[in-house]
Amino acid sequence: MNINDVLELVKEDIEAVEKNLIENLDSEVQMVNEVASYVFESGGKRMRPVFLNLSSRLFEYSGERAIILSGVVEYIHTATLLHDDVIDGAKYRRGRKSANNVFGNDITVLCGDFLYSRAFVNLVKDGDSEIQMILANAAKTMSEGEVFQLVKTAQFNLDIEDYIKIINSKTAVLFSSCCEIGAILGNASAKQQQAIKEFGTITGQAFQISDDILDYMGDPAVTGKKPGTDLNEGKMTLPVILLRDMATETEKKELHNIIVEEEFSEENLNRILELMKKYEIRKHSEEYVDKLLNKTKDLLNMLPDNEYRKALSFLSEYMIKREK
Amino acid sequence: MNINDVLELVKEDIEAVEKNLIENLDSEVQMVNEVASYVFESGGKRMRPVFLNLSSRLFEYSGERAIILSGVVEYIHTATLLHDDVIDGAKYRRGRKSANNVFGNDITVLCGDFLYSRAFVNLVKDGDSEIQMILANAAKTMSEGEVFQLVKTAQFNLDIEDYIKIINSKTAVLFSSCCEIGAILGNASAKQQQAIKEFGTITGQAFQISDDILDYMGDPAVTGKKPGTDLNEGKMTLPVILLRDMATETEKKELHNIIVEEEFSEENLNRILELMKKYEIRKHSEEYVDKLLNKTKDLLNMLPDNEYRKALSFLSEYMIKREK
Repeated sequence: MNINDVLELVKEDIEAVEKNLIENLDSEVQMVNEVASYVFESGGKRMRPVFLNLSSRLFEYSGERAIILSGVVEYIHTATLLHDDVIDGAKYRRGRKSANNVFGNDITVLCGDFLYSRAFVNLVKDGDSEIQMILANAAKTMSEGEVFQLVKTAQFNLDIEDYIKIINSKTAVLFSSCCEIGAILGNASAKQQQAIKEFGTITGQAFQISDDILDYMGDPAVTGKKPGTDLNEGKMTLPVILLRDMATETEKKELHNIIVEEEFSEENLNRILELMKKYEIRKHSEEYVDKLLNKTKDLLNMLPDNEYRKALSFLSEYMIKREK
Repeated sequence: MNINDVLELVKEDIEAVEKNLIENLDSEVQMVNEVASYVFESGGKRMRPVFLNLSSRLFEYSGERAIILSGVVEYIHTATLLHDDVIDGAKYRRGRKSANNVFGNDITVLCGDFLYSRAFVNLVKDGDSEIQMILANAAKTMSEGEVFQLVKTAQFNLDIEDYIKIINSKTAVLFSSCCEIGAILGNASAKQQQAIKEFGTITGQAFQISDDILDYMGDPAVTGKKPGTDLNEGKMTLPVILLRDMATETEKKELHNIIVEEEFSEENLNRILELMKKYEIRKHSEEYVDKLLNKTKDLLNMLPDNEYRKALSFLSEYMIKREK
């Protein structure tokens, strides 16, 4: 199995989702449709819809509701991206100018609000209160998590539990919601629903940690991103946390200065990378991810054995072991 | 009947709503609760909950659901205020520093998102799909309306239909939702539900127009606000639209320059006020409002005749004829 085999399994679903994303941009206000179209046409891997549809098909459901709910999830996800880009003052997203860069912060914040509420309109239409509660709570958790991350910016002593809390909120909760929705659509047993929900959570965590590893130690030629964004934004991520906990007292003080006191510089970034090399932080981070990956395998073993389960297994590993 | 008689009718309801607003701030992230508490503790007249509860009591419903749904509405309303204040760079709100001024734009945007999603959690719990759809659509309309207003900023030729569309979105739709929700809670007939919904729409329109009149022609000693905010922000509101349509060609050009070309200045504001005096714009604007007020009376006459109907009648007139 390779990534194309996986995507082939839900190719028609994702095409239908793409259509749904654009068709629901039915605002009377043309600017709203324009901004949202700009964002959706700039692509995105639609990983959340892929997980939702693989999960529902694993439990033998396929159909309109999986498409509509995928659209809802992608609207919520995109709303958070729009707001995040405003907050971070991001200039680019997916290789194009970010919406805030093109249309301004004001319109971008409001179009995020539009996507949230447009998502809820379709969620209400779908009418399943269990799914509504999952997604309303996910949206709530995501906004709280972003605030928590801001509050914890440049907090040198951030413990790993708080880091996990942050990545749960910003990434894992929506992946887990997608997997759980698939199980609900397919009338899975409570035990299976719980297992695939946890699978989504842990996959989401590992996915975000991989991202955080690549942010320091990815190959810019492969990732297409300048390393050190998280350092620049004062985010304490797993590689830095592991480094902090392994470093000598002197190095720890140096690290503290770089993260908390000083402005971002290439020199500081290089010093951190040097220390990360010394302490084999990439290896240690990847060991952490591997443990999560093993957990996802155990959880999948509790589910019906079919090609969709194989696809989820392949896909989670693929996302986690990626180089970009 | 005076305003205190009206408020006395729903005093216990509003006290319960206040309690609900604070109790639902149950975030694990303390900063989220802190920002939201700051906003709710700075007061606000809770006009939307007052309308919702008067409406439900008019139709002989009172109880927990009216309180919870009032909280939902107030959360949605507050989320829009938080985002608006970020967008407008507002420094003050209700006589205190605005949340963005105290906590920063980033946290304020996210706390707005939190309140939206927290509102939807309670809306899902309440479980009435008709009410869910009303409020999801209202939130959607409000965000679209704000974008529309931004797009139409300093558009000198804005016609009155577009102005009405803007005030419908930013103000009327949530008032109308509150009235309609009250009717649904009280099992009103379809005709009555439609009548009180329209009553809410027109009251909301007239309320916003009064605001727009006061923005130019209110007495700062009474309103506590500096006149000319809308001019400063390039908003085309009813008084300016009426003035534009009555002015001579020469005056129209002058007005165009002031609104579209030039920076805001006291001198320009005074010139507009002079022209407004010349053309009796206050009188004409108030005539416009009076027509709306008459419509609200006709609509109320279609509803059960009780003290709550009298209260709604008094209250809408009170809000519209206010001097601050």
